[in-house]
Amino acid sequence: MAPLTRFSVAPLYTLTRHLAAVASGRADPDLVITGARVLSTYSERILPDREIWIVGGRLAAVKPAGTYKGGAKRHDAKGGIIAPGLVDPHIHIESSMVTACAYAEAALLNGTTTIFCDSHEIGNVMDVAGVEAMLEDARQAPLSIFLTVPSTVPATSAALETAGGDLTADKIGALFDKWPEALALGEKMDFVQVAMGDERSHAILAAALQRGRPVSGHVYGREFVSAYAASGVTDTHEAIDREIADDMLEAGIWLFLRGGPPTTPWHSLPQAIRTVTELGASHKRIAVCTDDRDADDLLLFGQDWVVREAIKAGMSPEQAWSMGSLHGATRFGVEGEVGGMGGGRRADLVLLDDGMQPVNTWYGGELVVENRKITPALDAALSARYRYPEAAYHTVKLPSAIKLVPDLPTGAVTVNAIRTELPGITLGHEKIALEPANDWQAHFERHGLCFVTVVERHGKSAGNVAHGLLSNFGLTRGAVASSVGHDSHNIILAGVSEADMQVALRALEKTQGGVCVVVDGKVTAMVELPIAGLLSEKRVTEVAEEVKLMKTQWDAAGCTIPYMGFNLIPLSVIPEIRITDKGLVLVPQMEIVPLVEPA
Amino acid sequence: MAPLTRFSVAPLYTLTRHLAAVASGRADPDLVITGARVLSTYSERILPDREIWIVGGRLAAVKPAGTYKGGAKRHDAKGGIIAPGLVDPHIHIESSMVTACAYAEAALLNGTTTIFCDSHEIGNVMDVAGVEAMLEDARQAPLSIFLTVPSTVPATSAALETAGGDLTADKIGALFDKWPEALALGEKMDFVQVAMGDERSHAILAAALQRGRPVSGHVYGREFVSAYAASGVTDTHEAIDREIADDMLEAGIWLFLRGGPPTTPWHSLPQAIRTVTELGASHKRIAVCTDDRDADDLLLFGQDWVVREAIKAGMSPEQAWSMGSLHGATRFGVEGEVGGMGGGRRADLVLLDDGMQPVNTWYGGELVVENRKITPALDAALSARYRYPEAAYHTVKLPSAIKLVPDLPTGAVTVNAIRTELPGITLGHEKIALEPANDWQAHFERHGLCFVTVVERHGKSAGNVAHGLLSNFGLTRGAVASSVGHDSHNIILAGVSEADMQVALRALEKTQGGVCVVVDGKVTAMVELPIAGLLSEKRVTEVAEEVKLMKTQWDAAGCTIPYMGFNLIPLSVIPEIRITDKGLVLVPQMEIVPLVEPA
Repeated sequence: MAPLTRFSVAPLYTLTRHLAAVASGRADPDLVITGARVLSTYSERILPDREIWIVGGRLAAVKPAGTYKGGAKRHDAKGGIIAPGLVDPHIHIESSMVTACAYAEAALLNGTTTIFCDSHEIGNVMDVAGVEAMLEDARQAPLSIFLTVPSTVPATSAALETAGGDLTADKIGALFDKWPEALALGEKMDFVQVAMGDERSHAILAAALQRGRPVSGHVYGREFVSAYAASGVTDTHEAIDREIADDMLEAGIWLFLRGGPPTTPWHSLPQAIRTVTELGASHKRIAVCTDDRDADDLLLFGQDWVVREAIKAGMSPEQAWSMGSLHGATRFGVEGEVGGMGGGRRADLVLLDDGMQPVNTWYGGELVVENRKITPALDAALSARYRYPEAAYHTVKLPSAIKLVPDLPTGAVTVNAIRTELPGITLGHEKIALEPANDWQAHFERHGLCFVTVVERHGKSAGNVAHGLLSNFGLTRGAVASSVGHDSHNIILAGVSEADMQVALRALEKTQGGVCVVVDGKVTAMVELPIAGLLSEKRVTEVAEEVKLMKTQWDAAGCTIPYMGFNLIPLSVIPEIRITDKGLVLVPQMEIVPLVEPA
Repeated sequence: MAPLTRFSVAPLYTLTRHLAAVASGRADPDLVITGARVLSTYSERILPDREIWIVGGRLAAVKPAGTYKGGAKRHDAKGGIIAPGLVDPHIHIESSMVTACAYAEAALLNGTTTIFCDSHEIGNVMDVAGVEAMLEDARQAPLSIFLTVPSTVPATSAALETAGGDLTADKIGALFDKWPEALALGEKMDFVQVAMGDERSHAILAAALQRGRPVSGHVYGREFVSAYAASGVTDTHEAIDREIADDMLEAGIWLFLRGGPPTTPWHSLPQAIRTVTELGASHKRIAVCTDDRDADDLLLFGQDWVVREAIKAGMSPEQAWSMGSLHGATRFGVEGEVGGMGGGRRADLVLLDDGMQPVNTWYGGELVVENRKITPALDAALSARYRYPEAAYHTVKLPSAIKLVPDLPTGAVTVNAIRTELPGITLGHEKIALEPANDWQAHFERHGLCFVTVVERHGKSAGNVAHGLLSNFGLTRGAVASSVGHDSHNIILAGVSEADMQVALRALEKTQGGVCVVVDGKVTAMVELPIAGLLSEKRVTEVAEEVKLMKTQWDAAGCTIPYMGFNLIPLSVIPEIRITDKGLVLVPQMEIVPLVEPA
C-alpha cells in the first residue's frame, strides 16, 4: 500500500465523474458514516440525522440518515458530531522540535488535518535548502501541509547577527514558482521596515503580490496597522487586544486569533475576540491558530483546544469550529478542498463529543485516530518518516576552542546586563555598577547575575562569540544551552560556571543540536535536535516526554523563565536589549553596545 | 491623459512603498474624502466620523475624521455613507445588448465597479473569437470586468441546433491560460449531463479545476444538487426557493441570490434568502447578483437595487452591502483588490444616502458619478469605445430566398404547437387538430395561432429553416423578429403574414442583427444589434430608449410574452417544446418531432 500522505487522495478533477455517480446513487461509496449530526461550517448549524458518503478519499455527499441502502462499509457515529478537520492557518513546525511527519501525529490527534506552516527557523539555518527539505518532509507526512514562504530571514541584518540563511526576494520568488504548495508569503516580521518603506522588505512583498499570493503579517502597535495594511499584508496572528484587533479587521486584515497555553504570553485570543463579543464585528474574517507549540504542549493545546477557548470566550460551537477550519481555508483559497463538508471536498473529518473534543479523525477517508488513539494504519505511516539530507545533520560548526565567559574587570565598571522577566518576551536593559571583585561568582551573588553567551554555529564567521550577563535569570548552578536561538539559531548558553558551559557546548556539538541542562559537569537533561539543530528525529510523543524531563531539570536549575523564552534572548527585534553572536543589541535603536563600560 | 480603464490603477505590488508612506503620514494622498461614515463590509458595521486617504487610485488608509492636516484635494461627504463599490458576481453583458464599455456606464451609476461576466452569448455566435473580442472590449471599459469562461457552448448539441460556437475543453483551457482575468468557469448549464457523468461536460470541468479555477453553476431540482456539488461546482445563482438554497449551501456551494425586476421570473432572492431569515443559516457564503438585465431595466434594477431588496427581505444594510460586494470578491479570490475598504485596495467607492441609494461613485479614485449623474471625465471615457473586429459585424449570413412559413395542410392533421405562457420561461406542448382550411389565417383565428420560424444565420448549414406554430402568443398583425435567440442565436421570427416576416428578416439582415417589430410591411421599431447580432454600438442610455420604444410596439402588436421571453423560445434545455433551426425539440426527451402529423 502506498504511504498515507496528502497525495493519497487523487485531485478532484480526476474524480468528478465517479463522485457524481456515487452522489447520484449509480455507484457505491467506499464508506458511509451513519448516525451522525453534522457540524456545518457553511451555515454554522448542527444538522441532525445525517449520513456521509465517502469515495476515493473525498466526500460524495452528505445525505439524510437512512438514504443509503447498499452494502458499503459503514461506521456508526452513534449520534456524535461529525465536523470537517481543523485547518490551522499559522504555525511553525520547528517550534515543536519535530519533523513535519512527526508533527502530523499530534495534529491528527487534535482533529487538525491541514496546516499552513512558515518554516522560517530552518530557513534561518539552512536557507532555501532547509525550506525545501522541510517541504519534502511535508509531502511525505500524513497531513495536508501548505507553506507560507519565510519572508524575514534573517530577522534583522548581517550587521547585527550571523544567520545561516538569507532569503532574498529572488529566492522567495523561485520558491513560489517551484512549489505549488507555497500558497502565501509567511509572516513579514519586520513591520517597522515595512511601514518605513524599506526596499528589500517591499521587494519581498512584491515577489508574493505579483504572483497573486497573499501576504501574512506580524505587527505590534496600532500606529503601524494602516501602513502595514497599505503594504499589502492581509492577515496577522498578533492581535493582542480588542482595539488592535478591531483596527486590523477594518484595515482589511484577516485575524488569526492565537490561543496558547494559559501560562504563556501567546494566549491573546480572549482579549482580541472582544472585537466580536463586545464591539459587534462580524466573525466571518476571523480564524484561530496555534502559532508555536513545543512538543509537550502540542498534544494538550492544539487547534481543537483553541476552538474550545473561542467557545469559552462567547462564540457558538458552530462559529468557533468554522473559525478553526473553514475561515482559514477561505482566507488561503483552499475552501474547495478543505474546511467544510461540501461535495468533492477531501474526506478529512472529525468525530466530536458534545464537549467538542475530537474522538476520531479521518484523513482523506482513512481512519487515523479512533477513540483518541492513533490507529495501526497511522502508526505504520509514522514509522517510515522522511530522512533529511545529510547536510541537515551537520549544522553545528564550532572552532575547537572557544572562550565562553568575559574577562573579569580589574577596576570599577558598569555593565549592560539583560534582565529577564516573565512572561519572557521582552527583556529589560539594566546598567549595573560593579566594584572590583576576585571572581565573577562574587558579582553573581551580589547582583543576581549569570553568564549568557552566544556562539556562532553556521561556520560563517571566524568563531564569533559574544559575552553578556543575565540578571534575574535565577540560575545558581551549572549551565543551560540551546541550539535553538531565535531567529538565527546560534548557540545560546547561560551558566555560572564556564566549565559546565563548555560541557554543554560540546554536548550540543556532539548531538549537532539540542537543548540541555548541565550540572557539575554532567548533562542532566538533553533534547537532541540533530536536524538543523532544531528538530528531533523522534516521534512527537517521545519528544514530548524528553521535553517534559528537560523542563523539570530546567526548573530545578532555578531558571526563572522557561526554555522557550530563553531561546528568544537573541531575537533582536524585541525591546530592550538582546544578545547575538555580534554582541549586545539595543532595540529599537538597533545599536550594538559593549558589555563593559567605564564606571 | 490615458483612458480610464481597469489598468489606470497600477498593480498593488508597484505601489506598496508609496502607499505605506502616505498611510504613515510621510507623503500626501491625492484625495481625502472627509466627513464620512464608512460602511465596513469586513466587520458589518457603519463606522462614524471617518476620512479616507486615496493615492494612486488605491486606498492608503481610513482614518478618524480630522487626522489629515495637509493640503491635498478634499471631497466632503457631508455625513453620507462611503461604501466599497459593488461586485456583481454573475452577469451576462449581452443581455443588456450593449458592449462592455457601454455597460460600464449603467454599472457605475448603480455603484457597481466590478463584475464577473459570462460571455456565453457571443461565444455561441463567434466561438473563441467572440469571447476574446469581448475581453478586449472589457479591458478598455471603465469598469473592472472579470470573465467566467463560457462552459456550455452550445447549450445542447449539433444534433439539436446549429450554433456558431463550439467551446471544447481544450479551447476553454487555452482561454484560461491566455487571459489572466478569466478567473473561473462560467455557469455549467448542462446540469443533467454533469450529474450523469457526461465525458465532454466533465472534461470542461477538469479544464478549470486542474488550473485551480473555481466553477460556477446553474442547477434546478433538489435531486441534482449532491451530484452537481460532487462534480466540483462551487456557486450557483439559480436557488429559486428556501429548500434548494439550503441544500446548495450545505453542499458547499456559494449562493448568489438573484434579484430581478419584480415582473420577471428572475426575482428569486426573496424566496431563497429565507435559508438565512427563517432557517438560521449564516449569510457569510451568500452574495447577490443581477444575472440578466436588458438595457432599460439595467439602469433601474442594478446590483444596488438587489442589495436593497435583500434589506427588504430582512438583512441589515451592512450585511446586504457585504453580500453585494465583499462576498462575491471573496468567492472569486479578489478580496485583496475589491469588495472592502482595506489598505491597498482599489479606491472603488460609493457615496450612499440613508436609503442606500448611490449618489456618487469613484472608480480607481476617479469621480465618475456625482449626484447620480456621470461626470465629464466618465462621459469622455465612454465616448471612445472599443471597436469590435470586422468579422463581428457580419454574423447574419442568409440565403437569398427563404421560405418562412410551412405548407398549408391539405387534409385533416394534428400539429405540435408551442404554447406560450407568462412568465415566459417554460413553454407548453399543445397538440391541435386542424381541419382543412383555405389559408393559414383561418387556422390562426380558430385556434389562436401564429407562425414561428427559426432561420440558421451562422452560414454553417445549407440555409436551415424550421417552421412551427405558436399558440396563445397574441400576435394578430405583422411580425416580430430577433437575432437574439438563446443560446445559438439563430434568427427567430413570429408573425401572421409571411410578407411581414420577410420584411423583418431582411431588415435584420441589413442591420446584421437586432430586435424588430413589423406592421403592414413597415418596420415600426428596431433595436439595431450589429455586433454579433447581439450588441448595439450605442451608449446604454440610448439603447434603453430604443428598447423602451420597441417594447411599446411589441405590446401594441399584441404579444403576450415580453421579447426577452420570446428570445428564449429556441432554448432547448427548458420544457416542454422548443424550436431550433433543426426543428421542434421536445424537452427533456431531447427528440425532434415534426410540426405536422397525420390526424
